[in-house]
Amino acid sequence: MRRSEIRKAQERTASILLANGIALAAHEIEHIEVAGFGLDELEVQGLELVTYVNTDRYCAKELVLFPRQTCPEHLHPSIGNEPGKMETFRCRSGKVFLYVEGEAAASIKSVVPAGSESYYTVFHEVELLPGEQYTIQPGIKHWFQAGDEGAIVSEFSSTSRDEYDIFTDPRIERLPAILEEE
Amino acid sequence: MRRSEIRKAQERTASILLANGIALAAHEIEHIEVAGFGLDELEVQGLELVTYVNTDRYCAKELVLFPRQTCPEHLHPSIGNEPGKMETFRCRSGKVFLYVEGEAAASIKSVVPAGSESYYTVFHEVELLPGEQYTIQPGIKHWFQAGDEGAIVSEFSSTSRDEYDIFTDPRIERLPAILEEE
Repeated sequence: MRRSEIRKAQERTASILLANGIALAAHEIEHIEVAGFGLDELEVQGLELVTYVNTDRYCAKELVLFPRQTCPEHLHPSIGNEPGKMETFRCRSGKVFLYVEGEAAASIKSVVPAGSESYYTVFHEVELLPGEQYTIQPGIKHWFQAGDEGAIVSEFSSTSRDEYDIFTDPRIERLPAILEEE
Repeated sequence: MRRSEIRKAQERTASILLANGIALAAHEIEHIEVAGFGLDELEVQGLELVTYVNTDRYCAKELVLFPRQTCPEHLHPSIGNEPGKMETFRCRSGKVFLYVEGEAAASIKSVVPAGSESYYTVFHEVELLPGEQYTIQPGIKHWFQAGDEGAIVSEFSSTSRDEYDIFTDPRIERLPAILEEE
């Protein structure tokens, strides 16, 4: 992604959060993470993140999805003796469709990103409205897409080690934002 | 506390959260925890809590403080081989004055609850406005008070085991809300 595209997405993310009463410090706005997953179609497959805290015991982030933006399918593996990341998604505004392993919905309410159909394999659907949440167990494949209005999702979790995430799409490499900017 | 007092505090807490754009599910509103600490002066020393999730790896809560309401001084001890609870307080609305161990402020911006002065012993002051946060290390004594407008504070932490909390005031027993209701 070009630096100008990242900057624009950061500004849009900050505006969405502020409009929904979620205050950020100036240094947090500067460091909003814009994850394009190396796919070069941020508005389709992408995610914006503010990491509030990530210690060796817990992590908390705010996730922002633009309308119909999708975070691609992935899982959090165990690392050494430690089980994979466990995470709780709590919808704060808008609507989010979350897909996990389990019985597939007969028809899903999301649109799988065109050209990437084979990289979406789990279709047990969980619809989250503001005030609703769902906990994803370690090692479970999942992906999620915002509704037509976009979404803000608070993520509460065990320690986050994004560099170990395993994506179904082999084209994806989950790079830190700072590398994507270069 | 009487059941009617608890119910009133729950309704007030839900209203404050909703007015600030924080949506709760119906079952969460019913289970808002009203902690009076057995001191029978809820508006002075007390705290309202919504626990979103508390697993064996992490915990997330929303804390609500009425204007100038104070959570009494306490610490989170180690339990067996596990270090004490580590917690990050993030101010969402209003203002909160947090006190931890360390160099004492020459004069503090809070009012120590009358009659309980001897149970407040740490005075290193951290003032948190919306978008600002502070992480309290395990085993560190701390207490906090809202400003004149009250406060909403998101707490991200390691696993919460409130029953082990050690309060400076020996009159306090940190009971689950369900016991307080009886």
